[in-house]
Amino acid sequence: MSDPGTTLAAWHATVWAMLAAGVRDARAPARLPVLATVGVDGWPQARMVVLRAADAVAGVVEVHTDVLSPKVADLRTTPRAALQVWDAGGRLQIRLRCAVRVLTGAAVQGQWGRVPDLSRLAYGAVPPPGAPVPGPGDYGTEPGPGRFAVLRCEVMAMDVLHLGTPHRRAGFDRADGWRGQWLVP
Amino acid sequence: MSDPGTTLAAWHATVWAMLAAGVRDARAPARLPVLATVGVDGWPQARMVVLRAADAVAGVVEVHTDVLSPKVADLRTTPRAALQVWDAGGRLQIRLRCAVRVLTGAAVQGQWGRVPDLSRLAYGAVPPPGAPVPGPGDYGTEPGPGRFAVLRCEVMAMDVLHLGTPHRRAGFDRADGWRGQWLVP
Repeated sequence: MSDPGTTLAAWHATVWAMLAAGVRDARAPARLPVLATVGVDGWPQARMVVLRAADAVAGVVEVHTDVLSPKVADLRTTPRAALQVWDAGGRLQIRLRCAVRVLTGAAVQGQWGRVPDLSRLAYGAVPPPGAPVPGPGDYGTEPGPGRFAVLRCEVMAMDVLHLGTPHRRAGFDRADGWRGQWLVP
Repeated sequence: MSDPGTTLAAWHATVWAMLAAGVRDARAPARLPVLATVGVDGWPQARMVVLRAADAVAGVVEVHTDVLSPKVADLRTTPRAALQVWDAGGRLQIRLRCAVRVLTGAAVQGQWGRVPDLSRLAYGAVPPPGAPVPGPGDYGTEPGPGRFAVLRCEVMAMDVLHLGTPHRRAGFDRADGWRGQWLVP
């Protein structure tokens, strides 16, 4: 990804272009954002996820996960997430503040139908993710739609940092229609 | 970084070798971890930082920052952080749960003395980081030791995930002397 441009509108467009690239291209920087949540115990949690959808018009991104993964419990308690992407080539960091809904069951039937068979193995570890086991391979998988969740992340604000000469940074808020504002890096 | 090995002890050693590499090599995967905190407003926050020290014996890592950066306010309110590293080549993710102390002033005089002049520019933006400005370059820098903070991150637990065949995952806790435990990925 190249320079984000010189205007706030160009920066905003760059963010959504990067997110769209992450959805369609497994090698794009935004393919694997870090999702940070507040754990049920109050500790921050951060882990890599796979970006599955990005809708610039609605201002929504989506991540798929196992219903039994701890991040779902985190988000059911505190439905807020931060998503972070670093594009090393473009020296650009994107940070998204998201209000998250955990969708399951009938609400995600369509999405589940489009998950390839091999990918479905990610939704159904037995015992569930995070459980202690005697050896590293001592688990099975019983994938199924009952284990599939979509994290619908409504972007409330974005913070974009470009490390250049000089460093530049901008913030964007849903509340003002994404008009944007330059910030001190 | 290659395969983390087959024993819990080897995995533990791999984590610290990767963190040490991040401190000394600007191109190592652990050079730029994501630091997640709980914001003063209760929202999770995640941003890239530079790893500056890693002490395997003490189980401590360090990050430098501007005293006026929002992450310092976060950590003074909730002194807990998650650090996340993804080694794409080794397909290995490290997650550290850290209790954080914000060190400033006399306590960090030695570290400040070793910060190169050019790097010192990162500690002293005027107005402070995150402040709105009319244009992207409308800020100056007045670096000085009064703006310098060391985030001393005492690692309380580690979660390590290797994406291979099969996926493998291990957890390590300070409480049991880092003995470790295999986990379901």
